[in-house]
Amino acid sequence: MRSVVPDYLTEALGDVESDTSGEPAGYIPELAVADPERLGAVFATVDGQVYGAGDIDTEFTIQSISKPFTYAMALADRGFDPVLAKVGVEPSGEAFNQISLEGDTGRPYNPMINAGAITAHSLAGSAQPTPAERVERVVHGLSAFAGRRLTIDEAVCASELEHAHRNLAIAHMLRSHNILTEDPRTVVDGYTRQCSVLVTTRDLAVMAATLANRGINPVSGERVIPEPVVRQVLSVMFTCGMYDAAGDWATQVGIPAKSGVAGGLIGALPGQIGIATFSPRLDPHGNSVRGVSLFERFSSDMGLHVMEVPAAARAVVRSNHVVGRGPDAIRVLQLQGGINFAAAERIVREAVDTAPAEAEVALDLTMVYSIDDVGRRMLLEVVRRLTLDGHEVYLVDPEAIMPDPEPGNGGRITVVGDIEQVVHSRIR
Amino acid sequence: MRSVVPDYLTEALGDVESDTSGEPAGYIPELAVADPERLGAVFATVDGQVYGAGDIDTEFTIQSISKPFTYAMALADRGFDPVLAKVGVEPSGEAFNQISLEGDTGRPYNPMINAGAITAHSLAGSAQPTPAERVERVVHGLSAFAGRRLTIDEAVCASELEHAHRNLAIAHMLRSHNILTEDPRTVVDGYTRQCSVLVTTRDLAVMAATLANRGINPVSGERVIPEPVVRQVLSVMFTCGMYDAAGDWATQVGIPAKSGVAGGLIGALPGQIGIATFSPRLDPHGNSVRGVSLFERFSSDMGLHVMEVPAAARAVVRSNHVVGRGPDAIRVLQLQGGINFAAAERIVREAVDTAPAEAEVALDLTMVYSIDDVGRRMLLEVVRRLTLDGHEVYLVDPEAIMPDPEPGNGGRITVVGDIEQVVHSRIR
Amino acid sequence: MRSVVPDYLTEALGDVESDTSGEPAGYIPELAVADPERLGAVFATVDGQVYGAGDIDTEFTIQSISKPFTYAMALADRGFDPVLAKVGVEPSGEAFNQISLEGDTGRPYNPMINAGAITAHSLAGSAQPTPAERVERVVHGLSAFAGRRLTIDEAVCASELEHAHRNLAIAHMLRSHNILTEDPRTVVDGYTRQCSVLVTTRDLAVMAATLANRGINPVSGERVIPEPVVRQVLSVMFTCGMYDAAGDWATQVGIPAKSGVAGGLIGALPGQIGIATFSPRLDPHGNSVRGVSLFERFSSDMGLHVMEVPAAARAVVRSNHVVGRGPDAIRVLQLQGGINFAAAERIVREAVDTAPAEAEVALDLTMVYSIDDVGRRMLLEVVRRLTLDGHEVYLVDPEAIMPDPEPGNGGRITVVGDIEQVVHSRIR
Amino acid sequence: MRSVVPDYLTEALGDVESDTSGEPAGYIPELAVADPERLGAVFATVDGQVYGAGDIDTEFTIQSISKPFTYAMALADRGFDPVLAKVGVEPSGEAFNQISLEGDTGRPYNPMINAGAITAHSLAGSAQPTPAERVERVVHGLSAFAGRRLTIDEAVCASELEHAHRNLAIAHMLRSHNILTEDPRTVVDGYTRQCSVLVTTRDLAVMAATLANRGINPVSGERVIPEPVVRQVLSVMFTCGMYDAAGDWATQVGIPAKSGVAGGLIGALPGQIGIATFSPRLDPHGNSVRGVSLFERFSSDMGLHVMEVPAAARAVVRSNHVVGRGPDAIRVLQLQGGINFAAAERIVREAVDTAPAEAEVALDLTMVYSIDDVGRRMLLEVVRRLTLDGHEVYLVDPEAIMPDPEPGNGGRITVVGDIEQVVHSRIR
Repeated sequence: MRSVVPDYLTEALGDVESDTSGEPAGYIPELAVADPERLGAVFATVDGQVYGAGDIDTEFTIQSISKPFTYAMALADRGFDPVLAKVGVEPSGEAFNQISLEGDTGRPYNPMINAGAITAHSLAGSAQPTPAERVERVVHGLSAFAGRRLTIDEAVCASELEHAHRNLAIAHMLRSHNILTEDPRTVVDGYTRQCSVLVTTRDLAVMAATLANRGINPVSGERVIPEPVVRQVLSVMFTCGMYDAAGDWATQVGIPAKSGVAGGLIGALPGQIGIATFSPRLDPHGNSVRGVSLFERFSSDMGLHVMEVPAAARAVVRSNHVVGRGPDAIRVLQLQGGINFAAAERIVREAVDTAPAEAEVALDLTMVYSIDDVGRRMLLEVVRRLTLDGHEVYLVDPEAIMPDPEPGNGGRITVVGDIEQVVHSRIR
Repeated sequence: MRSVVPDYLTEALGDVESDTSGEPAGYIPELAVADPERLGAVFATVDGQVYGAGDIDTEFTIQSISKPFTYAMALADRGFDPVLAKVGVEPSGEAFNQISLEGDTGRPYNPMINAGAITAHSLAGSAQPTPAERVERVVHGLSAFAGRRLTIDEAVCASELEHAHRNLAIAHMLRSHNILTEDPRTVVDGYTRQCSVLVTTRDLAVMAATLANRGINPVSGERVIPEPVVRQVLSVMFTCGMYDAAGDWATQVGIPAKSGVAGGLIGALPGQIGIATFSPRLDPHGNSVRGVSLFERFSSDMGLHVMEVPAAARAVVRSNHVVGRGPDAIRVLQLQGGINFAAAERIVREAVDTAPAEAEVALDLTMVYSIDDVGRRMLLEVVRRLTLDGHEVYLVDPEAIMPDPEPGNGGRITVVGDIEQVVHSRIR
Repeated sequence: MRSVVPDYLTEALGDVESDTSGEPAGYIPELAVADPERLGAVFATVDGQVYGAGDIDTEFTIQSISKPFTYAMALADRGFDPVLAKVGVEPSGEAFNQISLEGDTGRPYNPMINAGAITAHSLAGSAQPTPAERVERVVHGLSAFAGRRLTIDEAVCASELEHAHRNLAIAHMLRSHNILTEDPRTVVDGYTRQCSVLVTTRDLAVMAATLANRGINPVSGERVIPEPVVRQVLSVMFTCGMYDAAGDWATQVGIPAKSGVAGGLIGALPGQIGIATFSPRLDPHGNSVRGVSLFERFSSDMGLHVMEVPAAARAVVRSNHVVGRGPDAIRVLQLQGGINFAAAERIVREAVDTAPAEAEVALDLTMVYSIDDVGRRMLLEVVRRLTLDGHEVYLVDPEAIMPDPEPGNGGRITVVGDIEQVVHSRIR
Repeated sequence: MRSVVPDYLTEALGDVESDTSGEPAGYIPELAVADPERLGAVFATVDGQVYGAGDIDTEFTIQSISKPFTYAMALADRGFDPVLAKVGVEPSGEAFNQISLEGDTGRPYNPMINAGAITAHSLAGSAQPTPAERVERVVHGLSAFAGRRLTIDEAVCASELEHAHRNLAIAHMLRSHNILTEDPRTVVDGYTRQCSVLVTTRDLAVMAATLANRGINPVSGERVIPEPVVRQVLSVMFTCGMYDAAGDWATQVGIPAKSGVAGGLIGALPGQIGIATFSPRLDPHGNSVRGVSLFERFSSDMGLHVMEVPAAARAVVRSNHVVGRGPDAIRVLQLQGGINFAAAERIVREAVDTAPAEAEVALDLTMVYSIDDVGRRMLLEVVRRLTLDGHEVYLVDPEAIMPDPEPGNGGRITVVGDIEQVVHSRIR
C-alpha cells in the first residue's frame, strides 16, 4: 500500500499548476531568472516524517522566511525583554518594506517587516559578536532548524547588496533612533547574508516542523530553541507574517506562516506539522501565488486552521463505577483521551458530584492519551482533596503517562499498573 | 470534596483586587458612576458547567463585546460574501473609534472597530428588516448566546445617543461610501441599543463558551450560529479584538478575546472554555485593567494560549500485532487518543510500513478518544487501499466514534464492536 | 478707442475654449446638468472698473468659493483668537473633503477644507444667532462682497443636503471634539445654504476685488470687512486655497485664489485687481480646467505673481539740491514715487549722508505717488532728528499725501504747498 | 543726524533679549556649545545698504538656510523641468526631517525638507560634476550670494557626518526610488558640507537681499541667479520654508523665509529688503525663538507682509487737460507713480472715456516712478490704437523710463523730453 499523503500532495500540485498568474521578484537579476514553473510542496510531521511532491530539492534563497527563525534566535540569545524593547509585536498592516516605526521610540512594529527583521538580526548571538560571528550564529541556527549545514548564495547576496538602498535607509533610520547601535551597513550586510541562505522546500518544511514541535528538530532530535520562544514566534507569525494580507490569511488559512520573495512559503501548525511550498510567481502582496492556493487547500482539506473547533469527542470520563462491595468497594473513574484544562475540569466535576462513599478511589489513566501540565496539576489536586477527605487514592497508570505523580500538601497516592492490583491487594 | 475551580477563581480575584489603577469610562454619566470595585470572573465549559467568583450576577452594559456576536449574526444571516464586501478582516492597529476606512472602497478594516461594528449591525437580520426588527434580531441573538432573554438599559442607551457624535460621524462617512445604504442615524440608534444590552459576567462566559463550543450554547443546547461562522469570528477576535494592543495580547494571552468599555472582557478558547471577567477600571487602550491581568494569569496557569504546543503524547498506534495464525491471522492496529491529520498520517505510515501479509486487517478504535473529519477521511482511504490490495478490513468501533464508515471507490469495511467478533467469526 | 482689456479677455477665452478636458461635478444632478461649454472671465479693479468677456452674467452656485468670505465674516464677527482656537491656518496638503483634524484638539487644519469651512460657518454672526439668523448674516455678507443681494438656489441646496453625508460625518466629528457646540445637522444645513448661493462671474470678480481693495467693495464703496482680516484671508488663500495643488499654484500663478466645484475660480491681487473665471469642467483636484489655464496666463502676461520682484524703478530721491545761498540757503530733497520701508530707508540715508549744513531743510513730496504707514513714520523721525540737530524743516506737500504730519518728541515741521513759499518767506 | 534704522534694530534686539526660552540644537556637541546669548539682526536693502545691530559678524554654520540657495542653483544649472521632476513644491506640513516622499514616485514634497534639499544638492552643478566639483559649485554659489568667499567649518562637518544617520536613511530611500542616482553617502557628505558653510548674520542678510533684488547681489552687483528662479525660490520659501509652522508664519509674518538649526533666520521681501537674525535658542519647530519674535515685529512695524494691501495712493492720472486750443490743441494725460497692470488699466480707461477730439495726444511720464512690463505693453497698445484712430501721439519721457517705446502694428509715437517741445513745435 502506498501512503495517501504523497498522492494528496501530487494531486494538490497538479491542481495549482495551471495558475501562471503573478510574477517572480524582479528587483535583482538573480531572482528574475528563476524558473517560474518550479513547484514543490513538503509536509514534515512532528515525529520527523517528511513527505514531498514536485521540486523539493531545488535550492533557492530563504529571504524573508529567515525572519521568524532569526527572531527566535534573538529571543533565545538575549532574552525577551531586551528584544521586546527594540522590536514590537503589533501588526502594522503595511507592506514588508515600509519605514514605519513607532512614533516616539523608533521601535519597529514587529519582526516580520524589514525594519524589525534587521533589528532582530542585530540581536542574534551573544552580547558582543563580531559581524562575522553573528552571521555564523545565524547560519548555524538556520542550519539547526533545517537539520543540515546551509550555505549562502554569494551571487544573490552580492546582487542584493547592490540593491539594498531601502534596507540601508531603514537601518540608518534605526541607527538614528539607537535601535541599532552599530554601523548600519554592517548590519544590513549581515541581514542580506541571512536572506541569501540557500534552502530547499524540504529544508523549509523541517524548519517549520521544528517550530511545530516545540523547538526540537523532529528529524535530528536537536533542541534548537526553548519552548517559550516558540510560542512567541508562532504568535507573531500568525498576526504579522503575511504583511498587509494578515487578516485574510488568519481567517482563511489560519496557520502561522511566513513567505519569502524567492517563492518559498512556510506554515507551522503547533503539535502537528510543518508545511513548505515553493513557486516563484508572486502576488501583489509579495506572497507566492500558488503557495497561497496550496495553503488554502491544505487548511481546508485537513482542518488545520488554529481556530477550528475540534469535533465533539468522547467524554473524558469513560466510566464511573464501583468494583467490589461493602468495605472493599473501590470507586473507579476510568478516564480516556487527552487531559487538558477542559478535560481535567470535567474530571474534577465528576469527583465532586460523585462524592464517593467508598474508602478507596482509583483514577484509571490506562486509556488516557496525553496529559498537559494544568491537567496534571488539577488531577493531583483532586487526589490531595480526596486524601484530606479520608480516601485512599490509587492512580492506575500502566505506561506512566502522569509525570511526577506527587500531590503534595497532605495528599497521598499509590501508583499501580492495573486496577486488578488494587482489587487483589484488597482481597488478600 | 469541593471543586478546585472556584477556589482557583477566588484566589485569582484576590490577587488582582489590590490593583486600583485605571479609570472607569467617563464619557457618559451612567458609566462614570459604576462602582469601580466590582470584580468578577466566570468560566463556562463547553459542556455547560459554569464556575464563578465575585460579582458574577451584576448587570452592566455589553458595549463592544457585542461586536463579535453581531458580526456572527451578520455572517449567518447574509452569508460571507455580502458581509466581507462591506467589512474587512485586517487588523488596523488603531484605537476603536478611529474613522479609518480603506482608501478606495470606504470599507472598514474589521468588525471590531466601531466603523466595522456599525456596518455589521446594519447587516444583521434578513434582507430588509425594519430598524426595530433588526434591533430585535440582535437582542434575540445575543440572548440566544447568553441563554436567557436580555434587556436594554434604556438610561445608558439614551445617554450614549446624546454622546454618539463620533459614531454618527463614522456612520455618515460609511453612508457616503454606500457601505451603509440607509439613514445613518437609524443605524447608530440601533447600534447604540445593541451596545446597551445588559449582561452579567455569567452571561458573557456562556456567550464565549458558545463560540468555544462551535456555535452551540452549551447550557441551553441551542445552535446559535453555524460552525464556519465561529471560525471566522474567533480569527477576527484573535487578530483585531484588542485594538491597538492586539499584538501584545496575541503573544502574551493568546486567546481570541473582546473587551467592552463598561469593564467586561471575554475570551473563547476553541473546544475548551469561555471565560469572562468584569472590572470597570480601564487602561489607556480601553481594556479592563484587572481583566487583562486575570486573562494573563489564566492563560499562563492553564496553558490556554492557542499557540501552546501540547505536550508530547502517547503514540496514536498503541500496538500493531497479529491475532491468530496461518490463514486465520488478523493484523490488528490498536489506535488510541485523538485522530486529527497528524495522527492519521502516523496511522497511514504504520499501515504502509507494515505492508501486512495477513489477509485480514483490523483497525481498533476502542481507545480512540476523538476523530476529526480529515482523520476520518484518511482512515477510510487507508481502508480503501487495503481493500484494493486484496485485504478484508474490519473496523473495531464499539461506540461508533467513526461517523459514516463508508470508504467508497472500491473500498469495503466491516464494522464490529469487538475484535473477538472477528476472531470468533473466523473460527467458525 | 476701445479698451485693450476686453480684447485681451476675449482673446484669452478664445485660446482656452478648445480645451474640453475634465468633467463637471457629478455628485448631484443639478451640477451634472450644467452646460460644460459655459466660459467667462471678469477683471474688477480696486477702483471699481469691471471688464468681462463670455458668460459673465450666468448664475451658478458659489460652492467652496464662499469659504474665504465666510472665514472673513467669522474673523470680523468674533475676533481672531476665538476663530483661531477652532480653525488652524496650516496647509494640509489634502483634498477638500478629507476628515483630517489636528490630533489632540480636533481643530481643522485650515478654513479652506470642508471641516474648517463648516466650523467657520458656525462662527459667523454675533455670539448666539439662530441658525436662520446665521444663514442670513452669511448671505448678507456675501451680498455685501458682491454689491448686490444674492439668493440661494433652493433646488441645488435640497439636492446637496441629500448628498451631504460626508459633511455630516465631518460635522459630527467636529461636534465630538467640541469644535462645533450645536447640532451638527443644523450647521451643515446652514453651510449647504451658504454653498448654494447663486453668483455670476461678475459678482465673483467684485468679491475678489473687495479683498484686493482692503475690504472695501470698490463698486459700492461699502467697507465689508476690516483690513487686518483681509491680510489673514489672503494669506490663507495663498497657502491653502487650491487644496493639494497649493504648491503648484503658489509657484506658477502666485495669486491668492479659491475654486468652487460649480466651475468658478477667483483670485485677488492685493492693491490691484480681483479676477474671476467660470468654466464647469474640473480637473482631478476639483479645480476648473480652463479657469486654471486662464489664471496661469493672466499671471504670466500681467506679472501678477505676488513674488514677482518689480522692475527697478527711479530713485526715490529725485534730487538733492540747495536753493538760495548763504544763510538763506535751503536744502531741498525732492522725492518721487511710492514711499514704503525700502524707499524711506533710502531717504533716511540721503539725509544722513548729506548732513546738511543749511539751517533749513525741505522734503518735497510733490512727486510722491503713495506713502505707507512705515514710510510716514520714518520720514517724520527724520524730521524730528533734523529739528533736534537745529534745522528748520519744511514739508512740501501740495496735495496733503502725508497724513497727520506731526513728528512729536521735539520734532517740528512746517507744511507748505510749494517750495516757492519757503523761498519767498525767507526773502521777506 | 544718525540713521533711524540702526536705532530701530538696537531697540528691537533689546526687547527680545530677555527671552531665554528654547534650547540650542544639541544633536552634535559643536552646536550644543554655541553661546546661547548671541543675538544679532541685519537689514540689507536692494540697493546694497547694510544695517546691523548685535553680533552681526559672528560666524556660525548656515545649516538649512542653505536650502533655498542650493535649490536656486539646481534650477539655474539644470533648468526647471529636470528639477521639478525630482523635487516637488507642495507644503508637507511636516517636520524637516521626516522621510515622507510622494507615494508612487518617491519624489520629496519640496526642497525645504531634508529629502528635497539633499536631492537639490545632488542637482547642483553641471550635468556630471565630481562630488568635489559639486561641493565647490555650491560653496562658490553661496559665496556669490553672500558677496565674499565662504568657508566650511570642518569640525562641525565631521561631527554632523557622524550623526547623519537620518539623512543617510533619507538618501538611501531616495536612491531606492532613483531620485538619487549615485552613492547616497557621497551625496550626504556633500550636503553636510553645504550645511557646514560658515556665515555671519551680515552674510545672510546680503544673501536674502540678493533674492529680494531679483537675483543680483546688491553689494557686489553680480547676477547670481536668473530672475525666474528667484520667483520660484521665494514662492517655495513662503509656502514651505518654516516646516510645520508654515501657515502661522505665512499669516503672521508673511515674508518668504528660512531658518537654520544653528540659530540663523532669513527673510526676503521682493523688491525691498533682505533680513537676517541670529540667536541660537530654538523653539520646538526648530526655529530660533528670538528670531521669530524679531521677524514678527519687523513685519508688523514695517508693513512687510506680502499680503499687506498698500495704502490708497494718488491717482495714476494726475491730470487730463488740453493745452492750446482749436486745431492746435493737445490732449495731455499727465501720469504719476508706478505703472503696473492696475495703473495701466486706469490709464487705458481714461483714454477710452475721454475719446479725445484733439488731433494730438501726449502721455506725460515725467512724474512716473516705475513701469513694469505689462504696464509698458498696455501703454504702447493705447498709443497704437490712438494712432489707428487718427491721432498723433507723443510720449513725454525726459528720463527715458519707458524702455523700447515702439508700439508696432501701425502704431506710431514721438518721444519728447518736455511737453513744451510739442507745444512749441505746434506754434511754429
